[in-house]
Order: sequence, then C-alpha cells, then structure tokens
Amino acid sequence: MFKKYDIIVVGAGHAGCEAAAAAANLGSSVLLITMNMGTIAQMSCNPAMGGVAKGQIVREIDAMGGYSGIVADKSTIQFRMLNLSKGPAMWSPRTQNDRMRFSEEWRSMLEKTPNVDFWQDTVKEILTKGDKVSGVKTSLGIEIESEAVVLTNGTFLNGIIHIGEKRFGGGRTAEKSSTGLTEQLVELGFEAGRMKTGTPPRVDGRSLDYSKMEEQWGDPVRGRFSFTDVEMSSDQRCCWITYTNQAVHDTLKEGFEKSPMFTGRIKGLGPRYCPSIEDKINRFAERERHQIFVEPEGWNTVEIYVNGFSTSLPEDVQYRALTQIPGFENVKMFRPGYAIEYDYFPPTQLSLTLETKVVKNLFFAGQINGTTGYEEAASQGFIAGINAHQKIKDQHELIMKRSESYIGVLIDDLVTKGTEEPYRMFTSRAEHRLLLRQDNADIRLSPIAHKLGLINDERLEKVTKKIKDSDFLVTYLKNTSIEASEVNSFLEELGTSPLSQNVKMFSLLSRPQVDMSDLRKAIPTFNNLLNSYDKETIEQAEIKVKYESYFEKELEIVNKMRKMEDQEINPDFNYHNMVSLSKEAREKLMKIKPRTLGQASRISGVSPSDISVLMVHISK
Amino acid sequence: MFKKYDIIVVGAGHAGCEAAAAAANLGSSVLLITMNMGTIAQMSCNPAMGGVAKGQIVREIDAMGGYSGIVADKSTIQFRMLNLSKGPAMWSPRTQNDRMRFSEEWRSMLEKTPNVDFWQDTVKEILTKGDKVSGVKTSLGIEIESEAVVLTNGTFLNGIIHIGEKRFGGGRTAEKSSTGLTEQLVELGFEAGRMKTGTPPRVDGRSLDYSKMEEQWGDPVRGRFSFTDVEMSSDQRCCWITYTNQAVHDTLKEGFEKSPMFTGRIKGLGPRYCPSIEDKINRFAERERHQIFVEPEGWNTVEIYVNGFSTSLPEDVQYRALTQIPGFENVKMFRPGYAIEYDYFPPTQLSLTLETKVVKNLFFAGQINGTTGYEEAASQGFIAGINAHQKIKDQHELIMKRSESYIGVLIDDLVTKGTEEPYRMFTSRAEHRLLLRQDNADIRLSPIAHKLGLINDERLEKVTKKIKDSDFLVTYLKNTSIEASEVNSFLEELGTSPLSQNVKMFSLLSRPQVDMSDLRKAIPTFNNLLNSYDKETIEQAEIKVKYESYFEKELEIVNKMRKMEDQEINPDFNYHNMVSLSKEAREKLMKIKPRTLGQASRISGVSPSDISVLMVHISK
Repeated sequence: MFKKYDIIVVGAGHAGCEAAAAAANLGSSVLLITMNMGTIAQMSCNPAMGGVAKGQIVREIDAMGGYSGIVADKSTIQFRMLNLSKGPAMWSPRTQNDRMRFSEEWRSMLEKTPNVDFWQDTVKEILTKGDKVSGVKTSLGIEIESEAVVLTNGTFLNGIIHIGEKRFGGGRTAEKSSTGLTEQLVELGFEAGRMKTGTPPRVDGRSLDYSKMEEQWGDPVRGRFSFTDVEMSSDQRCCWITYTNQAVHDTLKEGFEKSPMFTGRIKGLGPRYCPSIEDKINRFAERERHQIFVEPEGWNTVEIYVNGFSTSLPEDVQYRALTQIPGFENVKMFRPGYAIEYDYFPPTQLSLTLETKVVKNLFFAGQINGTTGYEEAASQGFIAGINAHQKIKDQHELIMKRSESYIGVLIDDLVTKGTEEPYRMFTSRAEHRLLLRQDNADIRLSPIAHKLGLINDERLEKVTKKIKDSDFLVTYLKNTSIEASEVNSFLEELGTSPLSQNVKMFSLLSRPQVDMSDLRKAIPTFNNLLNSYDKETIEQAEIKVKYESYFEKELEIVNKMRKMEDQEINPDFNYHNMVSLSKEAREKLMKIKPRTLGQASRISGVSPSDISVLMVHISK
Repeated sequence: MFKKYDIIVVGAGHAGCEAAAAAANLGSSVLLITMNMGTIAQMSCNPAMGGVAKGQIVREIDAMGGYSGIVADKSTIQFRMLNLSKGPAMWSPRTQNDRMRFSEEWRSMLEKTPNVDFWQDTVKEILTKGDKVSGVKTSLGIEIESEAVVLTNGTFLNGIIHIGEKRFGGGRTAEKSSTGLTEQLVELGFEAGRMKTGTPPRVDGRSLDYSKMEEQWGDPVRGRFSFTDVEMSSDQRCCWITYTNQAVHDTLKEGFEKSPMFTGRIKGLGPRYCPSIEDKINRFAERERHQIFVEPEGWNTVEIYVNGFSTSLPEDVQYRALTQIPGFENVKMFRPGYAIEYDYFPPTQLSLTLETKVVKNLFFAGQINGTTGYEEAASQGFIAGINAHQKIKDQHELIMKRSESYIGVLIDDLVTKGTEEPYRMFTSRAEHRLLLRQDNADIRLSPIAHKLGLINDERLEKVTKKIKDSDFLVTYLKNTSIEASEVNSFLEELGTSPLSQNVKMFSLLSRPQVDMSDLRKAIPTFNNLLNSYDKETIEQAEIKVKYESYFEKELEIVNKMRKMEDQEINPDFNYHNMVSLSKEAREKLMKIKPRTLGQASRISGVSPSDISVLMVHISK
C-alpha cells in the first residue's frame, strides 16, 4: 500500500512541516503522517510568530529556504519590528497571524512541494532493524518502511490536559493524545521526562470594551519575515493592551487551592519565561499589575487570544478574574485556558544533527526535545529534515555553529546542556548575538543553504549583490566628503553639533542623531544615488556604518574561539581511559559525545582543566 | 460564569448552526456548545451541498432566512443545476464546495449574528426540572441553564469508527466521540437506536491521471442557492468522472470477509441510497461498473473526495481497488474511507415542531433523528431553532405543511412514520413535488418567514414583486397576438410547425420546442419589454406558462386534501377509549399524537376506516 519512503516525518506541526519540506526539497521522498489532515501547522497557543530572538530564528529559517517566514508573512494581520530603539542585534520581527490562514498556507505550500506525501494516522511504534530505524507502525496496524524517521510529536505523547481539578487525555483541547510511542522508545533505551505548558482562555471580542484598553497598532509600513518576494496584504489589524490589577490577582488566588500546578498534580516543569498568570502573581507578588495583550485570532473572527493570561485554574475562577480586567467586564469566554503535561526526551540523547544516539537514522525535533515555541520547533524540524536527508544520501551533515546562527545556539544548548524545563530562545543565550541579527540572516546563511541545494542561484546572487552593494555604499560614505555649509543647518535641526570643517559622510552617519534618511534629505546627490538601491541594501550599509566597530570586535572574539570550535573530536572517542580527566567529565563526555572541543567546553561538569587535557591529547 | 440562556444548542454542524442562527435571529439568547471551535460546520463527508430534492431544501431554508444557501454560495467551487432536461420540479441546484471556506463562512456568519454565544465543551447531560429541560451539564462539570435545549449531536453519540476489522471510538476520524448523553436520555425514557454511515477515502490529486477521466464542468453561468445578493466568485473548478470495473470489484470482494458490514460487526443500518461501494457491488452484482465522481475539496488543495467509493473495507483493500480505477493507477491516499456507527433516537418520539414528547422544551435535529445529509440536518435545525424560540416566547408553533415544502415532508415523514435506516430526501417522497420547486421556494415560504420575523420587509417585497411581475408577463403573453409572418421562419429553424394564423404568444411558448429566449430573439419588442425584468421573474413567467395546467391540477388535489390536513386533533387526545378504532391504530395514535387528521392518515397501521371513525368523532 505504501512504497518505501526515504523519510517519514511524524507530526505536522511547525517542526514536522519544516522537516518534511526541507527533506523533500533536497530530493528525499517524504511521507508526512499527521493525526488530522485538518490541523496541519495548527498554532496551538498564540496566533503569532517571531518576537525577540524568535524573529531572528524565523529569518534564519527563511534565509535557508524554509517555509515558516513565507507562511507567517502570508497570514500576517499585524507586523511589528520589536526593539527598534535598541541596537540592530535586538531588532526582532514579530507578526500577529490569522490562525486559519497560517494553517491553510502551510498545508498549501506542502501540497505544492513535490516529494511530500500525506497520511492521516497515528504512529504507535517505530520499526527498527538492528540499531537503525526502518519505518513506523500506525494505529491502523500499517507498517510503512523508510530509511529515516523524524519524530515531532509536540505535546501529544501521553498528553494530559488540566483545568483546575479536572484532567483528561488530549494532545490539545478537543484533540486526542498519542499513546504507546513513549513506552516503546523507553523500551529501546531512551530516557523520557515530563514537561508542562499552558494556554490562556479564548474570548469573544464582541464582549470586550476596547475603549478601556490601549490600542496597539502594527508598524506604519508593514515589514516581513521572508527574504523572498512573498505576495501579501499591506492591511493590518489593531491589537490592544490592558492590565490585571489587585482584584484580578485576589480572585485568581481563590483558585490556588484547586490549581493543578500548586497542588502538585502536575509533575512536569513549565516554561519559566512564559509563565501562567497564577505563576506570575505567585512569583512576583510585589507586582501590582501584569500586562495583557488582547490579540485577534484572524482577519474575520471575533475570537480573541488573551496573551499573558495563560492559566490552568478552574474555569469559573478564570472567568471571574477576567471580568475584573478593564475592558473585560462583560467578557464571554469561548473556552478556558488549560495546562497540558506531555512526554519529552532529554535532548542530550541527540547528536548536533538531531539524530538520536540510541537509534540510528531516527531524528527528534520540536517539543519532544523539551523546547517551547513555534520558532524553536520549526528550526529544529528544518535541521532534522536536512540531516535526515544528508544521512541517508551519504552527504555531509549540517551542524550549525553558535557563531553563525541562533539555530546553532539552540541545538548546541539542547544537545550539550540538556534542559529540564521548556527551553525558549533569548538573545542572551547567544554569546555572539551582535552578529546574529535579523538583518543579516541571509548574508550569514544563504551560502550554506545554497551549498546544500535549498536555495537557488538567483537567491544567492541576490544576497551577494546585497553584500556588494552595501559594501559599495559604505565605501562611498567613507570616501565622500561633505561640506559643512551644506549640512550644518540640517544638523542643528537634528540637535547635533554643526561641522567646523568638511568631513566624510561616514563620520556624520556614525552620529547617533543622524540616520540614513536624514542624509538623504540633506544631500540630494546622495539621495539620487540611493534611489537605485533597495531598502535592505541601504539598511545594511547603515548598520555597517553605525556598528562596524562593535561587529569587528565580536568577530575577533569569534576568530579567537574558532580554534576550539573547529577542533573536531571523534564522537566515538572513549573518554573512560583518560584518567587525567575528572570522573564527572569522563561520564558527561561519554554521554554527550561532543563533536568539537568547543562543544565539550560547554558541557556542565567539564572544567577548563579537563579541556586543557583534551586539547593536549587531541593535538597529539 | 454563564447567564441563563433562552436556548442552548448542542453541536455546531449543519443542524446546530441553523438552529442557533434561527433562534438568535428571532431574538432568543443562544449558547452554541461545540466540542471544537475549529470544526464548526465541518462537512464530514462530501464537500457539496444540494442535489436532487436536497437543493430544493437549501432553497427553502434560504427563502426563510436560514444561512445554508448563503454559506454554500460563498464557498462554491462548482455549480450545476441538475435535471435541467426534465420538468422544473426536478431542477435541483448542487454545488461543490471548498471544505475550509464552508466551515469558515458558517463560523463567520454566526459570529456576526447578535445573540449567538459560543462555548467549547462536550455536553454530558441535559438538566431537567419536572418534565421540562432546564439546561445542560458539560464534561467540565459546568451546569448552564436555559429555557430550551436543541440537541444536534450528529454521529458523535457513542460513535465507533470501523475500517476492516479495526474499530475505535470517534465522532469523525481523528475526533473524539461523545459519551454519556445517550445513556442519560434513555434513563429519562427515550428509546435509542443505532445507525451507520460511511465515507470514502481521500486521495492526493497530484497522483491522479485526469486524462483518463471525463471532465465535468459546472454550468456555464454559475447559479446560486440564495435569493439574497450574496457576493461570490464566478470562477469554477473542474470535476471528473471515472468508473469502477470488474477488476476493482474483484479486489474489493477479497476484503468482504473482513468487512465490518458483511460480518455483522456493524449492527446499525446504513443509508440505502448512499451505499458503500461494497454494498453496491454486492447488491447490484450484475452492474459492470459504477460511476466515481472525482471531486476537489477546495480551491487550493490537492485533496480529492472520491465520491461513490464510500467503504469500510480494510485500508489495503481500498487502496488496491482504487489503483485499478482508470486514472487512479498511481493513487496516493490521504486517509482511508471508514464506516461509523452512532446512536440515534427514533423520531416518532418527536412532535412536528421537533420538540420531544418525553421532555418538554427539548428539541432534536439532524442525524440524531435518523436522517442523513447536510441539507436534511440543516432544515431540521432551522425548524427546531424556530420552534424552540416560539415555544419559550409563547408564540405559535411552526409546522411546515407537506404541500408547501420539502421541509414539511421531511419532518412529517420522520415524526409520523419514523425511520429505521438513515432517511434521505427524494423528490418522490413529496406527493406535491410539482409545487415544491426550487424556483418558487421564495414564493412559497417568504410570507411564513416574514410573519415569523426571519426576513425583512424588503425581502418580502422583492418576492411580491416577482409574483406580480411574472403574473403580468403571463397575462401579457396571454393577451398579445403574434403574426405568423413575424415568426414562421424562426419556428422552422426550431423544428416546430409554422403558424397558419396569428396566435397568442402564450400558445407559442407552450410548445416544448420554444422557450423564452427564442421568443426574445424572434420578437424585438418583447425582448425590449423583458429587458426591464430580472432573470428569476422571466423564468418564473416561463415556468408558469409551460406548466400552468399541471400546477393547477396539483393545486386542486392539495385543496381536496386540505380538509383533512387542516383538521386539527388535540395532541393530548386519549385514543385508548375509542373502541371503534383498531387496537393497532389506538396504540400508534397514542404514540405519534398526530396534530391533524392528515398526519393521522399517514401513520402506518392506521387504516382508512380508522380515519373515518376519527373524522366522525372529531367533527362532532
């Protein structure tokens, strides 16, 4: 009934969809198995993509030929570039999305991807031959063969939903959970753990009084995630902000004794940086209020996502607390918030390619690895899909470096350090974040993607041109003098000191008060020159001018580290015999099997002196 | 947490959606409870609306202010008026629909309907006070009060899905079933039964070879269900026709020993007129082939609905049989077909308002009453919603007559005769079908809907104008002579005998060979006159001219029957004391509690002599 596939991807969320697309675009035949063809790429929680550090990940996926950015762009109802007041490393694109459109666009893109087949079913077991995966077995009892399998089970493995004291099985509300697979993987030698996440209530927008809230509009000119020319609407929808208060908190506290989190019924740890509202008022008792983002679920629906109000308190407590939020006095709920517990597999069981160490050609991506967030999931799926293909086609593996991408940071963190609570990306996790910007994701990653065959020549040429043109503009600015008389009155208007002598345009643009658009206004010839360059190229030149010195310093650091980062270690190296290593280091090194000295140095329990020992040994 | 609602509607399929909309539009506060806000108005089976007799029902719902026609129009990917070669009573509009758009449009229309609130949950019990329903209790343990409840549980009550020898609980594939409610209703005194229905596999359109199939396009100018001015696309998609053959049948037969239907594992009866493919080759063994309609599931998806191939044979048998259908040689399945067994409640337990006799203010609509078909479900929901409102607001009940609508036929059949297999509407079920046409649904039903307050003055005036204008045109045709010389050459072209003397235009148009467009071409003055009338008015005039005599005869019959149909019987009448009635008649009459002598006459087991006895008694 089924041919043998190159790759079977289990689960069609953000991770599964990217995995299927990437592997198929590289040329593998892919079967994407989902429990429900109607919920492909369903946004389980907030209808939004990107945000701080996460937006950078979406740009990275897009730069490498993944689909998340395109799908997000096509389904955007509001776009904002966050942190524009900070340096460009902090600029983070974020979209509010139409939940139905997002799912539909993903499905449509996958349907248009040759080599991706679909099957609606639940995977109950993986099949193995020796130490290698050989396919899957489904709830219908069907065995389907493949060279590799990517598991992206999200919150569905033994999912249990909690609302107050009530609990029931489910992978999302109103959806079945998936049972059996965890147990089989544990039998095969995997270690499994339990995590928890949650989601807020959804409410009827018709029941809210927006006049009591602050409007939050998107950027005046809507931006985009994708480096490609996605056709998209320029319309945007308004969101709103309101706040909790003491009365809301007091009401919520009345439900604490029935809270599945506080009473210990939920064993798994939840996402620290995406806490429930009860967590927030518990942990930050001194805070008088918490921000609530009131976000529409789409272009045409009245459904509202109450961002910031994730909760698993009893539904009547949720309701009463909501009614005390300004604008929510007459709120009508569509459904309560809930917490969900699910199985994950500590990611130290993976190599940096996201292949499992226990079963060859088996890859894990997404929440199954203990992460939280659509973007984190999507990027893992993307890398797992690529590496599954590379593995079975005997091509070189793709290991992203920490110095070249957030994706590299994410996977290195997971695999090297593991995680005991849902892992979320932050800019602070990336030591080289100055280099890992949303504006240069294409510059950083297009060559890698092009070499793999994920983006075509045209796309690479576009990036090459962007680099060349922006460099030209920087050189122009460095070489072109400007007369004081030409700009002094303008500089005064901008509140920056006038020139006493002619200077290079570069030095003018280096001033914090002066930006590219100011220069264009002040100097018509320059404006004429820029008219033949696109927005991204000009922005790139501006960023280079303003932050060049910082970037250079950061690059120096990267180069210094490179020796360690590039120093490869045989993953099958037997540390047990190295008595000069500490016992803990030997155990951890055996478990993690680091690929480089750099990775080894980040393993907790491996000390700088252990690294010195290793360094000496390896250089022999 | 919830206010007391006027009406709670349980289930948001075709029945539930129409019930909620109708009751809310009449002014009741409505809570629509659905297991999943993401699957409102999900087309469980084929993505199509209307068809023979069913299209008439959609037109009737639309004429009365229901939403099904509008939603279908907005989501149409192909429109065909079936049976145009037959008389106008057989003309039946049918659309192929975009499954996602259909669901989204319904949800959007409900969200725009004031008085409709939503709650995502599963109803586990109805609450009662004395002999009256007083609300529902949900799986979250929430009790919500209301004056009336409409149950529209579809196939979800104790739903069990069968594929070959495998069976699992579910209301649709990949969706949970609903348990507990049947058991409670049985405890309350209801009789429950078991029915079965099925659905075909869905396949990947990219794997089909359309060159081996016949194209089936929609009507050149796309028609519509709705009498309102729905904005809609004029684009259409192509469908295809192919055929099974002996090899397909032989392969299917290999699976018969594992068929849940043939081996007796499925107890419930399935829809006779929508049989599975195994049923068809079993019952019609002499047929060499069966037609397969290859229908796209939407504008943008590659998913294909294999209409005519409903099956619950093992998935590998389904697959192998499919591959032997021309064009399906390389088919890839998305999911197998399956059968589903579910609970229903024999509809003789209802009154003609669709209120249950056991529990007051409790209404049943849709598959729970033993029907099959979206249109049948929608119309029942519509009537149940209206009557729930009318009941709690002490307004007159709405009982549709068999002589005025298919909806009347449907409900009268269900309530009076019951059904032991899924009931589907046919034109043959309507004794006055000549009058129950799709073209005059507005003429028949707008006055009723206007009186209820479901359509506004403007809509009624539009209908009044259509009647008046078409009558004027008929009179014009009756009164206006035409000169033989003016049309004779034209008549010859049409292959009908030339005139020997001048005649009225009416007599010319009465000829089968001559239609209105011919007359327009032949007689410029007439064409000029018609230019100031709309298409529907002109069509109505034409139908009146061509079929007037048939209609008049049918009306005479209706009028003769009227005495019996209008003769009301007190529903609390105690037949037990009427010894002159047969014992069977007394029992059946007590059970059905007919509202009129006409209804009594249609009860099986009530003989003409019983009716004579009743007639004498009532006229006393």
